[in-house]
Amino acid sequence: MNTESKYKNKYDTCHLTYALNIIGGKWRLPILWTLHKHDILRYNQLKRSIEGITNMMLTQSLKDLEAYGIIHRKQYMEIPPRVEYSLTKDGKDLIPALIALAKWGKHINEKNKCD
Amino acid sequence: MNTESKYKNKYDTCHLTYALNIIGGKWRLPILWTLHKHDILRYNQLKRSIEGITNMMLTQSLKDLEAYGIIHRKQYMEIPPRVEYSLTKDGKDLIPALIALAKWGKHINEKNKCD
Repeated sequence: MNTESKYKNKYDTCHLTYALNIIGGKWRLPILWTLHKHDILRYNQLKRSIEGITNMMLTQSLKDLEAYGIIHRKQYMEIPPRVEYSLTKDGKDLIPALIALAKWGKHINEKNKCD
Repeated sequence: MNTESKYKNKYDTCHLTYALNIIGGKWRLPILWTLHKHDILRYNQLKRSIEGITNMMLTQSLKDLEAYGIIHRKQYMEIPPRVEYSLTKDGKDLIPALIALAKWGKHINEKNKCD
């Protein structure tokens, strides 16, 4: 194996690892998936959709995903204040890869019970 | 949001989480990627291709991936013994999803330096 193939290998896995770091963690995937399924959700709707998530975890995960440019936060200047979350273009671009990965995961563990 | 969509959501992310658990960990991705690039490799070739991996980590990761049915281990009855590793059909099926994820990761962090 020459130096180039080693470098190429490292280069590829770097992007992969970067992507996995973004979507890793307990709550980020459920948040992204929920926003994919429902397009736009308010904070409380998101919280109700994701069983077991605390306010602290949801707030932090939303901030992280917003910082990566994957979700969009829109605040309406109303009383009471209204905040809506949705996937950005980059967030939507991630979905096909997640679907492919989920299909593969399903195939690998066909008999795995998920509930 | 009705009960069905909640369940569906949970069901989808379960497969995703399962897939991510399989490919997670520091060394599994580099191993899978290296086998994808080189088809068949002997243990020592794998070790040389993955910078920084120890024998313990490589042996354990190979065992785990073999247990999931993602890589194939073939031992030749020779002296000295020869052992070759390759991706199984299931392992190869994972590659397109990984490529899609790596492309997305690259796009998200275009300016990230990987070395």
